[in-house]
Amino acid sequence: MIEPKGLLVVISGPSGGGKTTLWRLMVERYPDVVFSVSATTRQPRAGEVDGRDYFFYTKSRFQEEVANNTFLEWACVYGNYYGTIASYVDNLLAAGKNVLLDIDTQGARQIKAKRPEGIFVYIVPPSYEELVARITRRGSEDLEAVARRLQAVPDELKELGNYDYLIVNDDPEKAQQQLRCIMLAEALRVKRQDTSWLENFAREAKKA
Amino acid sequence: MIEPKGLLVVISGPSGGGKTTLWRLMVERYPDVVFSVSATTRQPRAGEVDGRDYFFYTKSRFQEEVANNTFLEWACVYGNYYGTIASYVDNLLAAGKNVLLDIDTQGARQIKAKRPEGIFVYIVPPSYEELVARITRRGSEDLEAVARRLQAVPDELKELGNYDYLIVNDDPEKAQQQLRCIMLAEALRVKRQDTSWLENFAREAKKA
Repeated sequence: MIEPKGLLVVISGPSGGGKTTLWRLMVERYPDVVFSVSATTRQPRAGEVDGRDYFFYTKSRFQEEVANNTFLEWACVYGNYYGTIASYVDNLLAAGKNVLLDIDTQGARQIKAKRPEGIFVYIVPPSYEELVARITRRGSEDLEAVARRLQAVPDELKELGNYDYLIVNDDPEKAQQQLRCIMLAEALRVKRQDTSWLENFAREAKKA
Repeated sequence: MIEPKGLLVVISGPSGGGKTTLWRLMVERYPDVVFSVSATTRQPRAGEVDGRDYFFYTKSRFQEEVANNTFLEWACVYGNYYGTIASYVDNLLAAGKNVLLDIDTQGARQIKAKRPEGIFVYIVPPSYEELVARITRRGSEDLEAVARRLQAVPDELKELGNYDYLIVNDDPEKAQQQLRCIMLAEALRVKRQDTSWLENFAREAKKA
């Protein structure tokens, strides 16, 4: 008997692929979808709320949790630690929530090793020009940060083979529908369903 | 470079699961979906058209085609031969059509051996009572035929593990949407998409 459980859905892909807009749309539209809040050691920015935007950890606490193996994945990015708390995700899944994680390809590898039943979705913008336009348009970043993001693209793309699905995001509404369809289809997989009731079904038919 | 190709979708499941209504709805709704017409040696019934309902073969021609291995699957049912013509299906797939096949579990096994990239969907009615009601309601069959269909159910159900997806058909409209979602999601699989354009994408980013 399989416990009713939500789906663990990991989205990755280069900056400018539209991942943030995509998961926001999903959470907004579907009450069964929640976004996984990460733990981090970086300082809260103005307006950020602990437990909503991030779980803000001290460095020593983060290192303790790493030692205790309580993260599904963790990484150090530009001097700050980020991680996904396993028990937090598992509680959401046990409550039947479909949990969306926006994680880079290295983190996705870690998650896949621990949760091979996860669904791994790669998101790309429709063209290189569109990627550059989207990164530049943000305006919040200096040229150095833009160049850094662009230079990470080839390595990110090499990881595509580790993913189950590829969404070419040329329209957020369409991408949202595609991700929703992937989730609905995955929930219909034989291996994810409780099929014990069908044994009874066969028993009845045998009596006929 | 992967040729643009349609999906091969096999549906199976016990009589009374609503497979016929389901594939008819799919063909009616979606211009990209076609139903695979089988070859058979049985006599045409009133109103049946060659090439639309079946390809009507003589027994000697059917045996010749079996010898030439031109079928994706074939079987002898109550003295009549039925088969799926490989070249017919392949031509539809090459034209970008998504091809639906309504095949029993033994035939599905044969197809899976030859076309492991196919999508295998198992359809069941929501309960044993509903299955009996649906089979009996047809009225076109004598009690012996009904009993024969019911007795085949346990063996059919044993094959569920060979399938990718399970649809519990309690409403034809919902089942149709679920099958459509499965097809859309499968088309988004990394392994089914031409991702060669992304190599160029990475090359551009490297130059940045």
